[in-house]
Amino acid sequence: VIGASREAVLAELQAVLAKGPDAVEWRADFFDGIADTGKVLALAREIGELAADATLIFTIRSNREGGQPIVLSDRQAVELTAEICRQGIFPYVDCELSNAPADIDFLRGVAHDCGTRIIASFHDFQRTPEAFFLLDKLRQAERLGLDVAKVAVMPHSLQDVLTLLQVTLDARESMQIPLITMSMGNYGAVSRLVGGVFGSALSFAIGQNGSAPGQVPIDDLRCALDILARAGQGGAAR
Amino acid sequence: VIGASREAVLAELQAVLAKGPDAVEWRADFFDGIADTGKVLALAREIGELAADATLIFTIRSNREGGQPIVLSDRQAVELTAEICRQGIFPYVDCELSNAPADIDFLRGVAHDCGTRIIASFHDFQRTPEAFFLLDKLRQAERLGLDVAKVAVMPHSLQDVLTLLQVTLDARESMQIPLITMSMGNYGAVSRLVGGVFGSALSFAIGQNGSAPGQVPIDDLRCALDILARAGQGGAAR
Repeated sequence: VIGASREAVLAELQAVLAKGPDAVEWRADFFDGIADTGKVLALAREIGELAADATLIFTIRSNREGGQPIVLSDRQAVELTAEICRQGIFPYVDCELSNAPADIDFLRGVAHDCGTRIIASFHDFQRTPEAFFLLDKLRQAERLGLDVAKVAVMPHSLQDVLTLLQVTLDARESMQIPLITMSMGNYGAVSRLVGGVFGSALSFAIGQNGSAPGQVPIDDLRCALDILARAGQGGAAR
Repeated sequence: VIGASREAVLAELQAVLAKGPDAVEWRADFFDGIADTGKVLALAREIGELAADATLIFTIRSNREGGQPIVLSDRQAVELTAEICRQGIFPYVDCELSNAPADIDFLRGVAHDCGTRIIASFHDFQRTPEAFFLLDKLRQAERLGLDVAKVAVMPHSLQDVLTLLQVTLDARESMQIPLITMSMGNYGAVSRLVGGVFGSALSFAIGQNGSAPGQVPIDDLRCALDILARAGQGGAAR
């Protein structure tokens, strides 16, 4: 959900919920009230009331990792995310691994006191780093005591897509926390459909508006997951 | 199509054709008239009349590579396949790379005189050999002047599935002839759906009866290919 105004967010949320997603991510960096904590918390409450049946994820994606430019500093974004944790409506919040270690520690403390889980994320919209680097990013999330490890990278070839799937499988076999991985763009779309087979726990699809390149419509994703499940490969439904 | 009697073959063919396949493989090793060349050619003619809109593939799978036990020797199977070429109804015939070099040379000569293309195949129903071995099998088909290279192997892990996809991509980037690759069984089913993205030109699906483990129903395969095509990854339709 990437609406700019309260009205746009709520309208988009209703359209998305009509498609029955398992989870909904609110990308609050798109929200024009992001600098007003009271407005963000009020809208979060309205989102929680509408989306009672979907698992909610709160995300402020930084501009350097592909998000919208916002007036908040990294620290302010982390503090706003901590307020969301204290509110207790969103069971998952996103925290970029590129945040300052002290900010990550702070958010982990607040989140875990509140029973909120942190998705520790890394994005590269330019390229696909080497496998050892990506694997280390995922493991870093676990080392830091965070709850879910996410890596999203841009491929320039089908080889990059296979590298991402290989990293996913290697991480799945050597880590305990859930993983979310994807190869973005046109080359990577296949990874959004079959990443679950190789160990990714969640795939982001287009409800009404996409938030990253290569996302497929939720109906197509669900159809692909159903086909895989019938073929005995229901990994994405873990 | 794996019927044992003429009637079973024709009934199965009609059921399969109703599902609109691009290609139909007749697995003649299942046919109880396999030892009677006249019966095989007569049935081939009937198949050709029924299946005018689908690309036909004639295959006698040997028992050692997962086919039915038959009374024909390898040489006799190759001679029967050559008769099919001369008949001019099946544009593709299968020839296992495990055949004697002289038999492969013989069949290539006949097939190419008749304008028939040879799918040079390798199967391992027990395991997934190492990548360099599989890549060499595919390249062997090209070295021998055959027209399509096929490898079908059994995985014991998701790593084996990724190995097969990696081999497919490596072969696609280094070879000229079309490839058909698949990882079989439950683990491998995903490769039957997305192998086309990485360079496989054909995927075998279940029309009425499956002929190898892990095949998915043709409707599921078509749905998955449509989703991939909409996402810009219509590789399988090459």
